[in-house]
Amino acid sequence: MPHINVNSNLPGIRQLMDFSPETATPMGELANLMLRSNEGLTMAEREAIGAYVSHLNDCFYCAQSHGAIMTCYLSDDGQLFNQVKKDYLRADISNKMKALLAIAGSVQKGGKHVTKEQIEKANLEGATDRDIHDTVLIAAMFCMFNRYVDGLAANTPSDLSSYPLRAQQIAAHGYGNYIILNAQPEQ
Amino acid sequence: MPHINVNSNLPGIRQLMDFSPETATPMGELANLMLRSNEGLTMAEREAIGAYVSHLNDCFYCAQSHGAIMTCYLSDDGQLFNQVKKDYLRADISNKMKALLAIAGSVQKGGKHVTKEQIEKANLEGATDRDIHDTVLIAAMFCMFNRYVDGLAANTPSDLSSYPLRAQQIAAHGYGNYIILNAQPEQ
Repeated sequence: MPHINVNSNLPGIRQLMDFSPETATPMGELANLMLRSNEGLTMAEREAIGAYVSHLNDCFYCAQSHGAIMTCYLSDDGQLFNQVKKDYLRADISNKMKALLAIAGSVQKGGKHVTKEQIEKANLEGATDRDIHDTVLIAAMFCMFNRYVDGLAANTPSDLSSYPLRAQQIAAHGYGNYIILNAQPEQ
Repeated sequence: MPHINVNSNLPGIRQLMDFSPETATPMGELANLMLRSNEGLTMAEREAIGAYVSHLNDCFYCAQSHGAIMTCYLSDDGQLFNQVKKDYLRADISNKMKALLAIAGSVQKGGKHVTKEQIEKANLEGATDRDIHDTVLIAAMFCMFNRYVDGLAANTPSDLSSYPLRAQQIAAHGYGNYIILNAQPEQ
């Protein structure tokens, strides 16, 4: 049960964004800027970073939601998300993404865990300053979203079959529409 | 030395907001909404939560910056910020704030560390749903800001005398002016 009185017809972070629509707007804008861009990192790669950090933060809802959006962009069967969660070093992703996921994993622990060696490795694999900036900010942003959801004990659907539909909505409309989507009761 | 090529004339998060002005806008808006309000929690109490979480995250720059802004609002000598950092249970703050700082400390560890008992205690001390929501979101937001600053190893002034001036600027103009302030070279 959520720690505060929210609309229980909405899932996860949408309950909180409905409770506090004024803060939902900049949070949705930040998510849109960081996750809905193919500049440098692809949208699927950006979602992979968010889903991986959410998995490390033990935020089931965020990990499954963003894993489903990644899967939607890739049009695969969810296999790559499962590989990344299990052992990204053996996943079918680029060496650059492996180096960036190492940085994201350090950010999840705390900013000072990122090492110069991790940055050098990412640079060697072709990561630009923009790629490194975006990786750190996406990882940091999910450390906020995960804590917002779990810190207020928002209701999160445990039924995995409900995630793909919402993933398709986000893939089609982006995060700026969180509030509009909030206005629609969930199925 | 920062992990990416940023303007070294700017301190801390401003280096990163200068590197990525488009994401600086929603981040500044979120900070403004959460920290520049006296609805429920006062602006000084909101800064205290942010400074305390930054201290727990070992982010010297954010802890000192927001401690200085709290000090600015209270017009004290920094004594209360030092008390909160050292042992908030003995600090000269309300029981409601002590209960909310306990929640903020749990959010810093991870959202699931917040307990029902902590929420009940805060409610008993007079905290509303809005107070609890804002405490969790402020704590979560600083878990993002702290990781953004330290994850990219932004240069942060170790000279404590430089913090009060910037604190006065924020106290006077708010966070929405981060970008404008960025355009001015630091002294």
